[in-house]
Amino acid sequence: MFMIRCSAGNHLKLIEIVILESHIPFKYLISIVKYELILVLSLGIITHVGASKFDEFLPPMPLTIPAFLGTSISVLLSFKMNQSYDRWWEARKLWGAITNDSRSLVIQLQSFAGRDHFHMIQKISYRQNAWCYLLGKSLRGSSSAEGLQHLLSEDDQVEILKHSNGPLALLQLTSKDIQLLRLDNAIDVHAHIHLQETIIRLTDSMGGTERISRTVFPSSYRLVLHLMIYLFVVTLAISLKAINNVLAIPLLLLISVGFFSIEKIAYQLQDPFKNHQSDIPVTEIAKTLELNTRQLLGEEIIPSGQTLNDYFIM
Amino acid sequence: MFMIRCSAGNHLKLIEIVILESHIPFKYLISIVKYELILVLSLGIITHVGASKFDEFLPPMPLTIPAFLGTSISVLLSFKMNQSYDRWWEARKLWGAITNDSRSLVIQLQSFAGRDHFHMIQKISYRQNAWCYLLGKSLRGSSSAEGLQHLLSEDDQVEILKHSNGPLALLQLTSKDIQLLRLDNAIDVHAHIHLQETIIRLTDSMGGTERISRTVFPSSYRLVLHLMIYLFVVTLAISLKAINNVLAIPLLLLISVGFFSIEKIAYQLQDPFKNHQSDIPVTEIAKTLELNTRQLLGEEIIPSGQTLNDYFIM
Amino acid sequence: MFMIRCSAGNHLKLIEIVILESHIPFKYLISIVKYELILVLSLGIITHVGASKFDEFLPPMPLTIPAFLGTSISVLLSFKMNQSYDRWWEARKLWGAITNDSRSLVIQLQSFAGRDHFHMIQKISYRQNAWCYLLGKSLRGSSSAEGLQHLLSEDDQVEILKHSNGPLALLQLTSKDIQLLRLDNAIDVHAHIHLQETIIRLTDSMGGTERISRTVFPSSYRLVLHLMIYLFVVTLAISLKAINNVLAIPLLLLISVGFFSIEKIAYQLQDPFKNHQSDIPVTEIAKTLELNTRQLLGEEIIPSGQTLNDYFIM
Amino acid sequence: MFMIRCSAGNHLKLIEIVILESHIPFKYLISIVKYELILVLSLGIITHVGASKFDEFLPPMPLTIPAFLGTSISVLLSFKMNQSYDRWWEARKLWGAITNDSRSLVIQLQSFAGRDHFHMIQKISYRQNAWCYLLGKSLRGSSSAEGLQHLLSEDDQVEILKHSNGPLALLQLTSKDIQLLRLDNAIDVHAHIHLQETIIRLTDSMGGTERISRTVFPSSYRLVLHLMIYLFVVTLAISLKAINNVLAIPLLLLISVGFFSIEKIAYQLQDPFKNHQSDIPVTEIAKTLELNTRQLLGEEIIPSGQTLNDYFIM
Amino acid sequence: MFMIRCSAGNHLKLIEIVILESHIPFKYLISIVKYELILVLSLGIITHVGASKFDEFLPPMPLTIPAFLGTSISVLLSFKMNQSYDRWWEARKLWGAITNDSRSLVIQLQSFAGRDHFHMIQKISYRQNAWCYLLGKSLRGSSSAEGLQHLLSEDDQVEILKHSNGPLALLQLTSKDIQLLRLDNAIDVHAHIHLQETIIRLTDSMGGTERISRTVFPSSYRLVLHLMIYLFVVTLAISLKAINNVLAIPLLLLISVGFFSIEKIAYQLQDPFKNHQSDIPVTEIAKTLELNTRQLLGEEIIPSGQTLNDYFIM
Repeated sequence: MFMIRCSAGNHLKLIEIVILESHIPFKYLISIVKYELILVLSLGIITHVGASKFDEFLPPMPLTIPAFLGTSISVLLSFKMNQSYDRWWEARKLWGAITNDSRSLVIQLQSFAGRDHFHMIQKISYRQNAWCYLLGKSLRGSSSAEGLQHLLSEDDQVEILKHSNGPLALLQLTSKDIQLLRLDNAIDVHAHIHLQETIIRLTDSMGGTERISRTVFPSSYRLVLHLMIYLFVVTLAISLKAINNVLAIPLLLLISVGFFSIEKIAYQLQDPFKNHQSDIPVTEIAKTLELNTRQLLGEEIIPSGQTLNDYFIM
Repeated sequence: MFMIRCSAGNHLKLIEIVILESHIPFKYLISIVKYELILVLSLGIITHVGASKFDEFLPPMPLTIPAFLGTSISVLLSFKMNQSYDRWWEARKLWGAITNDSRSLVIQLQSFAGRDHFHMIQKISYRQNAWCYLLGKSLRGSSSAEGLQHLLSEDDQVEILKHSNGPLALLQLTSKDIQLLRLDNAIDVHAHIHLQETIIRLTDSMGGTERISRTVFPSSYRLVLHLMIYLFVVTLAISLKAINNVLAIPLLLLISVGFFSIEKIAYQLQDPFKNHQSDIPVTEIAKTLELNTRQLLGEEIIPSGQTLNDYFIM
Repeated sequence: MFMIRCSAGNHLKLIEIVILESHIPFKYLISIVKYELILVLSLGIITHVGASKFDEFLPPMPLTIPAFLGTSISVLLSFKMNQSYDRWWEARKLWGAITNDSRSLVIQLQSFAGRDHFHMIQKISYRQNAWCYLLGKSLRGSSSAEGLQHLLSEDDQVEILKHSNGPLALLQLTSKDIQLLRLDNAIDVHAHIHLQETIIRLTDSMGGTERISRTVFPSSYRLVLHLMIYLFVVTLAISLKAINNVLAIPLLLLISVGFFSIEKIAYQLQDPFKNHQSDIPVTEIAKTLELNTRQLLGEEIIPSGQTLNDYFIM
Repeated sequence: MFMIRCSAGNHLKLIEIVILESHIPFKYLISIVKYELILVLSLGIITHVGASKFDEFLPPMPLTIPAFLGTSISVLLSFKMNQSYDRWWEARKLWGAITNDSRSLVIQLQSFAGRDHFHMIQKISYRQNAWCYLLGKSLRGSSSAEGLQHLLSEDDQVEILKHSNGPLALLQLTSKDIQLLRLDNAIDVHAHIHLQETIIRLTDSMGGTERISRTVFPSSYRLVLHLMIYLFVVTLAISLKAINNVLAIPLLLLISVGFFSIEKIAYQLQDPFKNHQSDIPVTEIAKTLELNTRQLLGEEIIPSGQTLNDYFIM
Repeated sequence: MFMIRCSAGNHLKLIEIVILESHIPFKYLISIVKYELILVLSLGIITHVGASKFDEFLPPMPLTIPAFLGTSISVLLSFKMNQSYDRWWEARKLWGAITNDSRSLVIQLQSFAGRDHFHMIQKISYRQNAWCYLLGKSLRGSSSAEGLQHLLSEDDQVEILKHSNGPLALLQLTSKDIQLLRLDNAIDVHAHIHLQETIIRLTDSMGGTERISRTVFPSSYRLVLHLMIYLFVVTLAISLKAINNVLAIPLLLLISVGFFSIEKIAYQLQDPFKNHQSDIPVTEIAKTLELNTRQLLGEEIIPSGQTLNDYFIM
């Protein structure tokens, strides 16, 4: 339920979510911070018991200290969330550019090469589509061309195996095919360069997704953030000694849920090509692209109703 | 009254808004957060009654806790608002680019193809205009070409039906028409490429609007924010036990209105192609574009005064 | 004094501003928030009198509440200021791009068309300059070509009247003149495209200024901000009952001046083509551009000393 | 010491700076805020004496008020710092683009015009270098070509005098020289356009530096910020009556140093072409560019060791 | 352990890190702030002893003062972190662009020059790879071509020595080789310009890395931040007199660790080409690029398993 947009009647729905159906997304929230919550609960109980036992030794902790810590944490979390969101959105833009340039490539080929070279246009368009699937898989760590046999010729499948970077190999093959079109005088030098520029843009977008996927934000920042949240929890627990523990422990847990979930959401957002629920749905986008490509090529496709009615992601 | 700019005498007007006429925008604000307010009111009353009943059991809640929660919420809201505004502004820029490139396409065609091909230029310009209307409808979920018969040939209307992505089909048709101009030697290969680049930019802008429209911000962030606001309300209500409830309940409601409205404004902004009041007025912009296009084509249009005097959006 | 930069001796000058000469900018600040201040003063007095009268009914308001409200307001103001500044700076960049491309257009024409076509180059350059003046006026709501007779031919002035968007008409005329240069073989197709690309960039910049000028930030955010500032003022006034009113009322006014002025500065910045003091000086920039253009065309202009010595804006 | 990077052993060095050698940068900090500090000191003493004298009249000022003011100030300062840094970094990027395009221009000329036109290439390259020096001077208010005789022909020096914008005149001269190369058939039309595009980029970068240099951030924001800092100082001073003045006055001064220095750093950053210590070292960058250009032209330069070993800025 | 991504089972792993294995990253954190911690410890002890000794002279420091200082510090740290992260990410993007353009250069050469010029293509591709290694070294202060003999011809190695900027010399050599291809009619003028544009992009990216590497953020901001953290520590220490020092000193140390580590992380991030642990791994990226380049050239490379399985950075 992470990626579903509640488009209509969302006032009512929200109330439902918060009050009635809250067990579903709330469960999700709890699931991503469950270890932290166990730790907080333990810390809370230990502190409470400890504070009761050593009451005469332990001086009162003014509430001002956890309060300012909490404010500081929210400021630092806000930066983290901002930075993670920017990565996620940049990744989304890159994948959008990939879709746009893949569609443009088909239209450009048709506009310059003409009907006589339909088979080459089809071959390149299919391979471009396979490239999207393969890049998505490669970002998730798998580089096999399995399942792409309907889009890739056997020669292409063999060529991929010679390269450590499969998608790059496919771009080189497309570049060579465009050269063949040029040598056949199907296109002139200007169209050749024009198409080559699209390949350069695709290389750039591919490099961008690789950059985001393989560069990690310094984990020490995360460690400091966790440290400060635990420090907040402990000081708050000591401060709340005065408050009846009927309220103190739930308060501790609820505020901790807030802080830790935001930290976790940020952590998952910053790596948008892994297997989290907030991931960019690269395979779904590639599927829609395949549908569009086939229709641009003039194939009469009756899209499976489900894909287009319930789920239209581009 | 959401999108009207108060250009002159705004000092006075604002006072009017806040004091005298406040029932209009205020009503709007209330309308978007009414379910939340009912919940807050219920929570406030329950807490008050509960706190009075169980006064001996319930220890005092130091005001520092809701205060720091409130500060934290404003920090997290600020991030949310920022992110939503950026999406909205990006969408606005994309729609601006669509307008600019549509106008440029007409001027480019006129500059390269010349007067002899007036009918083709007119056909492409009209279709480009239809494309803007159709894209706007498609982002709102409708993909029918209804109402665009004066801008689209019958062939075009048939072609759209074969595609799941109507606007993409129109761009392909324009690309083919430009190819026809090239085969007729109306334009040379350089102008062909030059025009094709405009189509690539239009494909990119179209992809950008689709990306914004179909990607949703992780809803768990929203859930956490709501959770923290409700936690703020409950702790504030308990803290305010000491204050006479003449003041406590209105205070609760007013602060909640502030927080929830900002959250709701942000929520509506982040999805600028749906049916909210803060939406980008794509249809109005397309109408102005149609007027401009017709004037560029030399048609003598007497614009309806209302459109241009009272309402000039580009 | 809003746009004057104090370049040297600014330490001393600042002290002067704050202490001695403070009546000038301070007066300006007061002038933009005077209605709000009257309201704050009234609220302060009413609350004070009311609080004295109903002292036994009115419980004490803990200072923590206005304090956290004040912090929250500063966070939300900071977002507003940020967003408004970005709009203002984007508008400034667009106007800078207009200046740059206008200068480039002259240099490009001279480089490709050569001396034989001096009159056409001059005509286009002058028209480009008129375009800047006209766009500036059009953004302020006036679209007459009055005062531009020395830069526009009579035919051009007639043509403008046929269009609802005057500057767009001028760009079309320039595009047609470049086409004439091409038909005269004064330039070849490559230079034609190269010049056409400059016109596309000018169309984009024009569209950008129109976008900023005609899109308004959701006014409900502003309303919420005002609401929260007034809530802050009222709660602070009640809290300050304990403080001698010699201090309480000035404190209320001074803090309110701070908050309201920042809100007002942000409000004026976000609309940089209207008649505020912080507006982008489009007419002055167009004047400097006219001087530069004439010098590029080889005219010997003795600039009026005032323009260049005291005031050099580009 | 403002621009020197402490690259190694910075832990130790920092301690030295803070503890032992702190008189140097600390002196700098004090120097930029000395007038403000005198004012704060006076305000502190006056308030203290006044508060002692009128103790019975003056009610206690709760510390919460200066505390929340201080937090608000830091939020508003943070926005200011952000905005100023962005301007500074944008200016730095523009100057970097100028360097990059100047180097590219030499390589492009060599690649297209060939060895037969060495003198023209040298002339343009030298003039481009002079352009960098002249633009740097022009941003600082001086527009004389003095000291650039070794890079500019006499004709060029005469031409500059006819223009109010010297750097723009130089770009026009380069554009004309490239036209000469074209008329000599040293380059073809494609190389002509390719080189012209570099001149367009240089015009854009020049316009960008002029924009930053001649647009000032609304000074009323600064005034509000100063107002709020002084309000903070006065309320803090009244609040600290209770504290022994051994601590109160230094505390006032230290916190004020913090706030005022950040404001001043931001103020100096936002205007990166004036004579502050944080300025972009345009002359040094132009010197390095001259060295690179001469080496690209094949001149055997033994760079003065100092420039390259101790100081390598690009 | 700074750059290792914990991809799976990170909940468990995190708990391990925080509880069990915390000695490793925690040790790292401590190591980067050890001098500051010693200072804080000394200050804490001195203040504690001093406060006990001069208890009758020293008035109580209200906790509100360090609390608001702490909040302000977190706001200012957040700006610093943001700015440093942006530099780091910009550097990463530039290095990504370098990789992308280097790969594109090989594909472009193959697409335009064809098989007959394999040796020239290979020479340029190898040199481009050497350029990446050399730029990485040059940013770290070393400019020798040592270790690049397998990628650079002897002539190239000699040429580098004549230049103070080695990578720039290599780009000039590539530009000259492309000119040779043109003179041989291996490519036509359009491909020549197309390839030259890639060199311009590489010059821009090189200039960008030099800009980031050689421009330092004003160190006075850092000094102010340190000053405020120490002021926070001292005021907190005085305020905590009331609290048993069993808790006070650890609390001081832990909060200081938080603030100082974030400042240090930001400091290291802002200079991403030096020898910190958070540096961009330019050498590893160049290695992967070498592998890709060789495979694009058709060499059959069996990559060392370690590079590809354990460590894939692009």
